[in-house]
Amino acid sequence: MKALVHDEGLALVELAPPTCEAGEALIAVRLAGVCATDLEVLRGYRDYRGVMGHEMVGEVVECPDDPTWVGRRVAPEINVTCGHCHACRHGCANMCERRSVMGIFGRPGCFAELVALPIANLHVVPDSVDDLAAVFVEPLAAAYRISTQIDVAGLQSVAVLGDGKLGLLIAMAMAERGAPVVLYGRHERKLLLAEGAGIATRRSERGKPRSCDLVVEATGSASGLKDALELVRPRGTLVLKSTFQGAVNLNTNRIVVDEITVLGSRCGPFDVALDALARAAVDPRPLIDATYPLADGVAAIEHARSKGTLKVLLDMRAL
Amino acid sequence: MKALVHDEGLALVELAPPTCEAGEALIAVRLAGVCATDLEVLRGYRDYRGVMGHEMVGEVVECPDDPTWVGRRVAPEINVTCGHCHACRHGCANMCERRSVMGIFGRPGCFAELVALPIANLHVVPDSVDDLAAVFVEPLAAAYRISTQIDVAGLQSVAVLGDGKLGLLIAMAMAERGAPVVLYGRHERKLLLAEGAGIATRRSERGKPRSCDLVVEATGSASGLKDALELVRPRGTLVLKSTFQGAVNLNTNRIVVDEITVLGSRCGPFDVALDALARAAVDPRPLIDATYPLADGVAAIEHARSKGTLKVLLDMRAL
Repeated sequence: MKALVHDEGLALVELAPPTCEAGEALIAVRLAGVCATDLEVLRGYRDYRGVMGHEMVGEVVECPDDPTWVGRRVAPEINVTCGHCHACRHGCANMCERRSVMGIFGRPGCFAELVALPIANLHVVPDSVDDLAAVFVEPLAAAYRISTQIDVAGLQSVAVLGDGKLGLLIAMAMAERGAPVVLYGRHERKLLLAEGAGIATRRSERGKPRSCDLVVEATGSASGLKDALELVRPRGTLVLKSTFQGAVNLNTNRIVVDEITVLGSRCGPFDVALDALARAAVDPRPLIDATYPLADGVAAIEHARSKGTLKVLLDMRAL
Repeated sequence: MKALVHDEGLALVELAPPTCEAGEALIAVRLAGVCATDLEVLRGYRDYRGVMGHEMVGEVVECPDDPTWVGRRVAPEINVTCGHCHACRHGCANMCERRSVMGIFGRPGCFAELVALPIANLHVVPDSVDDLAAVFVEPLAAAYRISTQIDVAGLQSVAVLGDGKLGLLIAMAMAERGAPVVLYGRHERKLLLAEGAGIATRRSERGKPRSCDLVVEATGSASGLKDALELVRPRGTLVLKSTFQGAVNLNTNRIVVDEITVLGSRCGPFDVALDALARAAVDPRPLIDATYPLADGVAAIEHARSKGTLKVLLDMRAL
């Protein structure tokens, strides 16, 4: 099968198709999404080498342990967990100490014709959710993660900083959960897109200092993080959603003196994201800037890397 | 009156005694404590100039608006608040936007014979609490602040990093609240002191990575902060208690990927601290390394600054 592999540089290569281990299903990938984390991986994050990609929708083509899965359209969770460690036994399976993560750490990704994953990772995509929406389940779930950590509907003022893919999805998810969200950004096209989804916007990454109950940092930049910390009110909460390479300077004095809570937020609930898509309560499809056949995967990544680009998809059925 | 003033350098100077504004009491200071924040102020923190000091016990000598206060022994809160701003009206008076802070910001401190403060700031010290214990009410309240932010008794493993004054008081306060505290430090004398108070210790500032539910950073050093972040478990909490000058490098990736909560913690409940002292549930007096008359205040600060020193007191009655 063809796959987009990061090894000595990024290249489309021919690989032997994966085989199902016990409890696994083989999935024919339909669409996959390029994420900022993929670009970080290509810059050295986690020293990953192998098939890239972790956002996908596909169809089960083989499942020896439970053939009823064959033919089902699925969006798979990206963390493959052991089920036995302390984290797994205490409801934090995403923090599993022995986890592998599709396309990021210890497990091949989905920028390929086929991928093998545990049945336990699969979520069936309802018929009402088309592939173009379903490919967003993983990042949309990550966006919904915040509202499982904090009661966002009870807040007076919520700022999401950064109008990139992540910021837009977070703003959509939080607005859908009843939070009084304002999306802060500097890109007219993206802010108009947010406004089209009914979200209030502000054409800046700065706001009235110390004014927001909750600020979500989704710029992915150190300066955005600084702005975010300035924007949160005393005893407010700053959610960190972007992963940065290396350590970042943070004004810990502000955190102490104003008793700020800084909260890390990563993967989220696939069921919540799928439910929102099925109800058409959130529509991420306007974020799609381009779809490339897998054969043009290297060009797709280049496009995703170019400034101002929102979501780039890879279509595996259009080899 | 004599007062220890930070202006062009630190000096004992003769000042006109303060007068009571409306709603204020004039307090004859008995004992005052030198805090790490005083040393930070002397290094430029908040650009404060004026009479130093914020930890004290004293006796009310004048109170035109309510003479019943005269003769009472008091420990005063250090934040003088407006009572009208958003923070004051929403139960966060310590975050008052127009606050002044005794000896730190906009208001003379207590390294002086007399200090004037609002009646609303005064807490009566019970007879069972002697002056040497009462002078610790402010820092002990700050130590208790953590257990008002987090249910510490429900945790499995709590580490306090740093065996200085702050770390010792925090360990005492958290142990008293039922938390399974281990105090991490490198100073034999201080760790023995903690052990004498029934607290488990570890002769290191490092521990098993990712093992603790709650880690309190009380070293005041950037390396201690790094160690603290490594020690906290996925989805655990890191409490920042030390104020650092300037921005500090922090591995925000760890915060995001492991969904760590970083929580700033500052001033605390005086009533809780006074109650613990009155019950003799906590005894901070073994932390006293030296007591100087106010006349030797400059030497007292020098002593407080010297490596390994715990609490240095100023005695205003022994001029």
